Amino acid sequence: MNRVDLSELTPPLPRLLGHAAYLQLSFFESLGAAVATSPSTSSKENLSRIASTVLERHHALVAELRRIGEDPHAAMEPFVAPVDAFRAQVTGANWYESVLSYYVTSGILDDAFRSLIEGLGKDRRDSLAEILDEKESHAIIVAELGAAIDQNPRLASRLALWGRRLVGDVLLQTRSALALPVDTAPDDPKLEPIFSELIAAHTRRMDDLGLTA
Amino acid sequence: MNRVDLSELTPPLPRLLGHAAYLQLSFFESLGAAVATSPSTSSKENLSRIASTVLERHHALVAELRRIGEDPHAAMEPFVAPVDAFRAQVTGANWYESVLSYYVTSGILDDAFRSLIEGLGKDRRDSLAEILDEKESHAIIVAELGAAIDQNPRLASRLALWGRRLVGDVLLQTRSALALPVDTAPDDPKLEPIFSELIAAHTRRMDDLGLTA
Repeated sequence: MNRVDLSELTPPLPRLLGHAAYLQLSFFESLGAAVATSPSTSSKENLSRIASTVLERHHALVAELRRIGEDPHAAMEPFVAPVDAFRAQVTGANWYESVLSYYVTSGILDDAFRSLIEGLGKDRRDSLAEILDEKESHAIIVAELGAAIDQNPRLASRLALWGRRLVGDVLLQTRSALALPVDTAPDDPKLEPIFSELIAAHTRRMDDLGLTA
Repeated sequence: MNRVDLSELTPPLPRLLGHAAYLQLSFFESLGAAVATSPSTSSKENLSRIASTVLERHHALVAELRRIGEDPHAAMEPFVAPVDAFRAQVTGANWYESVLSYYVTSGILDDAFRSLIEGLGKDRRDSLAEILDEKESHAIIVAELGAAIDQNPRLASRLALWGRRLVGDVLLQTRSALALPVDTAPDDPKLEPIFSELIAAHTRRMDDLGLTA
């Protein structure tokens, strides 16, 4: 395997859709908990919009699975245990950490899936690109967390630390989405450029929050 | 006050919309937790569809508030503490109870709000009726819980008991949605026919689950 980019590691469509669909459902579960513990009605309302977007994505991906003749539950099943375990690891200790978790984990994973679909045929790529399109979710989070971070240097440093702790788990989850030869070493240097690119985008997103990645 | 029906007790529109919008957000929070603890991926998926419907309702009601020039957060604010307290009281001890809670509480409250909007002008009534339309949520729950109840008489009796415990709290919450003269006694007999009608519909819904109300 020479240096690769993500679009060369696109898994078979049912696997890609099953993984992406279950991840969105998992994001929704985390967001649901964050909505319930929001510090204000306005935050509740804003996060509920993101939860709505994520659920729409999940349902659209499930519909894609049906369209290609796959049973959505069977396609999601292999991802239930690993994604649930991932979610447990990235659940924050409070509302701020939980919201940052969604921002960081969905930031990297959605980016990864948007790249993986580049390896598909044009029609499928276009319809999935529309489903996975970023919309306004990250802008809402920057507005929600940004002000609190600016005003509270302790919160800023705690969240920066939390953000750094999340990255390892997200990259492992990302790696499990790739179609890799079974004998690929966990630290195969050819994967490095892929991860570097994902991390660079993550760093920019942390900058948007005023946090050091 | 003579014998009344709900459409004579319609509160001012911002109050009606604020209460209904916050209730839907509260239902969403309960459903989010139920999605996260679903016993199977297929249940998760089905409940997530209901969560989606409820969120759409919430956002549509918020949009209605904006349309009439009200600040949605200000309109919802008076309902935050009482609805949060209500939600805490009707949260089930496990997945089955939580799903039944949504079924029972939204069953009665959505019915009540659908009747209250009858007191509005035609245009507004029609658009709100569409927002509050039942859709398939209750059918999904009957499918989810019905089989488990049929197969497990102990579960059936526990859930029937839980259903009965919920009714008092839901009726209090319903009462708080009505435009009543301030000196109306809690047990004013003229309210009785209203509650009887809501209870009759509730009893039919419990029947659909194979439970005695």
